[in-house]
Amino acid sequence: MNYTFSEKVSQLQPSAIREILKFTSDPEVISFAAGNPAPEAFPTDVIRDITARLFEEEPITVLQYGITEGYTPLRELLKERMAAAGCFREEQEDLLITSGAQQVMELACKSLCDAGDTLICEAPSFIGSLNAFKSYNVNLVGVPMDEEGMDPELLEAALWANPNTKLIYLIPNFQNPTGRTTTLARRKALYALAQKYDTIILEDNPYGDLRFAGEDIPTIKSMDTEGRVIYAGTFSKVLSPGIRVGYGIAPKEIISKMVVCKQVSDVHTSNFGQMLAYRFMKEVDFDAHLAGLREIYRQKAARMIHGMEKYFSPAVRFTRPQGGLFLWCTLPEGSDMTGFCKRAVAEFKTAVVPGNAFMVSEEDVTDSFRMNYSTPTDEAIDKGVELLGSLTREMFD
Amino acid sequence: MNYTFSEKVSQLQPSAIREILKFTSDPEVISFAAGNPAPEAFPTDVIRDITARLFEEEPITVLQYGITEGYTPLRELLKERMAAAGCFREEQEDLLITSGAQQVMELACKSLCDAGDTLICEAPSFIGSLNAFKSYNVNLVGVPMDEEGMDPELLEAALWANPNTKLIYLIPNFQNPTGRTTTLARRKALYALAQKYDTIILEDNPYGDLRFAGEDIPTIKSMDTEGRVIYAGTFSKVLSPGIRVGYGIAPKEIISKMVVCKQVSDVHTSNFGQMLAYRFMKEVDFDAHLAGLREIYRQKAARMIHGMEKYFSPAVRFTRPQGGLFLWCTLPEGSDMTGFCKRAVAEFKTAVVPGNAFMVSEEDVTDSFRMNYSTPTDEAIDKGVELLGSLTREMFD
Repeated sequence: MNYTFSEKVSQLQPSAIREILKFTSDPEVISFAAGNPAPEAFPTDVIRDITARLFEEEPITVLQYGITEGYTPLRELLKERMAAAGCFREEQEDLLITSGAQQVMELACKSLCDAGDTLICEAPSFIGSLNAFKSYNVNLVGVPMDEEGMDPELLEAALWANPNTKLIYLIPNFQNPTGRTTTLARRKALYALAQKYDTIILEDNPYGDLRFAGEDIPTIKSMDTEGRVIYAGTFSKVLSPGIRVGYGIAPKEIISKMVVCKQVSDVHTSNFGQMLAYRFMKEVDFDAHLAGLREIYRQKAARMIHGMEKYFSPAVRFTRPQGGLFLWCTLPEGSDMTGFCKRAVAEFKTAVVPGNAFMVSEEDVTDSFRMNYSTPTDEAIDKGVELLGSLTREMFD
Repeated sequence: MNYTFSEKVSQLQPSAIREILKFTSDPEVISFAAGNPAPEAFPTDVIRDITARLFEEEPITVLQYGITEGYTPLRELLKERMAAAGCFREEQEDLLITSGAQQVMELACKSLCDAGDTLICEAPSFIGSLNAFKSYNVNLVGVPMDEEGMDPELLEAALWANPNTKLIYLIPNFQNPTGRTTTLARRKALYALAQKYDTIILEDNPYGDLRFAGEDIPTIKSMDTEGRVIYAGTFSKVLSPGIRVGYGIAPKEIISKMVVCKQVSDVHTSNFGQMLAYRFMKEVDFDAHLAGLREIYRQKAARMIHGMEKYFSPAVRFTRPQGGLFLWCTLPEGSDMTGFCKRAVAEFKTAVVPGNAFMVSEEDVTDSFRMNYSTPTDEAIDKGVELLGSLTREMFD
C-alpha cells in the first residue's frame, strides 16, 4: 500500500551529509566526525563493582516499573548538587530525569510550541536538537554567533520579527559544533533580551563539566530569577551515553507538562542507568572523576591543535575550545567547503562533518566544518590531522 | 512569568482517577490498581549472572553510544523469532528497538498522524496509548467491544464517518483493561475492514506470550500481506519493564520515519536493557521461561476469580481472561461505578481503577472497573477480594 506521513516527519529528510558520514564505516577512514566520549573515559571497573552490588542488593527495584519523574534518590541528589551551583530553586522548580538530554529538548518543544511557533537557535547549532524542534513543525530561526556567542543585536532583530518566539535554544559552554563559549557579558545580554521579549531560554549544558582551560562562567540558569530558563544536563559525557540518563530543570508548571509528555513517550527512563548514576555520584569522588576526564580531553584537544598548527595551511582558521569535544575549522572565505570534506574522506580517508549540517537549513552557506577530538585515538589524531593538513596546503597555500 | 503551553499538552489534563490512585501509596491499601509484573516473575539470579558477564566482556559496548535502530544482535534475533511466528517479512519489513512498547505507539502516531486525523481505538483501551495519541491532537474515536473484541459493524460505521482514519489501534490478546481476547473470526473481519477503507492497524501485543488457558490465536500481523499492520512487542511483561525495551515491526518505509522520530526523542534505547534481553533470549530456554511465567499468572488469576466467585454479589459480572494481567468487572447497569471505587478505597482500603479512565473521554459512562492480579501477593488477593466482595453485597444484593 501507499503510505502518507504526517507533515511533521515529511519535513525531516535524510541528510545530504549522510553521504559523507557513511564513509566512516570504512575501517580505513580516520573519523573526526563522531561525538562519542573517549572509551578510556569510562570508569569501567567502578561501574562493574557498582552494578554487581546493585543486582545483589536491589534487583527488583532495577527490574520493576519506576515512576515517570525519575528514581527519587537520584533526583534528590541532583537537586542538591544543582542547588549548590545556583541552578535549582526548591520552592519554584522541579527536576525531571530524562532518557538523555536529547529528551529534554523534545519534551520542552512539545510542551511549549505549536506548529508555526518560532524557536530561535544559534547558527550553527547541535543537529540533534534542531531535528527535534523541526519534528514539531516550528519556525526555526538561526541567529549567527561570533566568538563570544550568539549575537545579541541579531537576536533582538529576530525576537522583534518573530513575536511568537516560544524558546531560545542556547549551548553556552563549548558549543556543539563550534567549541565556542558564550561570555558572561553575552549571557547577561541574552537573558535580558529573553526578559524584554518575555520568552523562555532553553539552556543545554552537556559539556559544562568538561572545562580544561580558563575559568568557569555562571550558567544562564543561575541568573534566572523569574522561571525563564529551562536547563538540560546529562550523564552522557561524564559517565556514559549508553545508559541514556539526562535531566531537565524548570519551573514546576513546565516540568509537570514535560512529565505528561514523557509518560506517553517511554513511561520512565531505564532504572539501571538511573541507579548506576546515583550510586556512582554517591560512592565515588565525583569531582575527582571529573578532573580526570578534563585531563583526558585537555590532552586530546592539545594534540589535535598542535597538529593543526603544524600541518594546516595558515589560511585555515580554527577555534581553540576551553572544554568539550569539538573544534570548528573555517576555510578561506568562499571556499568549496563541501568539496573539501568530500575530498578529505574520499582521497585522504579522513572524515569531518560539513558545517552546513548544523545550520537551520543545509542550504545555508558556511565555510566551516566540525572536528571531534574525543573519539579518535592519539595515533588517529596525529595521522588524520597530517592528512587533512596536506589537503589544506594543496587547496589553500 | 506566565506560561502558555502547546495545544497538544493543554488538552492533557491530570486525570480525575488520580484522586483514587493516590490512595494506593497508603501502605494499608491493597492495590488491584497497578499493572506491574509479579516480582517473583523476575529471573533475578540469571539476570545477575548475565549482567556480571556483560560488564566483564563488553563494558565499552554497554556504556558507549549505540545506534538508533537498536542493538544489532537483538534486532536479528527478534527478526528470526518473529519471522518464525509469521510476523516479520525480511524483504518488505524492518524492526526497530524502542524504549518500551509505549514508544511504538508514540512514534507510529507521530509519523502517521497530523492534528485532526482520526485514530480509532477499542473502547475501553489502554490509557497510556490513548494519552500518547491525544498528545498529537488526533481525533480519537472509541469503538465499543463485545466479548469477541471490537465490534466490526461499529468499526465500519466509524471508518465510514471518518475518512481521514490513519490508524486502528487494537490489543487483540488479553486486552488492557478488559482481559478480553479478540477471536480469530473477528481479527479477520477487522483486517478486512482496514483493507476496505485502506487504513493501517496498530497491533499492540504486550501480553501475547502470557496465555495460560485456551489456544493461541494468530496475530493480525501474521495475516498481513500488504504492509498494513504495525506490530508492537515488548520485554516488559516477559523479562523486565524497568529495562524499557520494546520493539516495533512495520514496512521499511514506516520504520524509517519512526527511526527519525526516535532519534530526536532519545537517540537510542539504553544499551544495557537491549544487551541483557539479547543474552537472556540467547542463553536461557526462553520458551521454558515463558511457561514458568504463564504458570505464575494462571495461579494468580485463578485465585482472584475463585475469591470473586465466592465473595462477590452475583449481580456483579466479570471477565475470565485466558492470559495477561487484568480482568474487567461490571456492576449492575446504572450503578454508581465511580462511587463504588471511591468507597472501595476509602472505606474498604482496596483500590481498583474506575473504567472511565480507559475511555476516550473520562466523561464516557461505564459500569465497569479494572482489577489486576499480577502485582498483589496471594494474601493481598484473598483479603482484598473479600473486602471488595462485602462492598458488592452491601450495594447490590
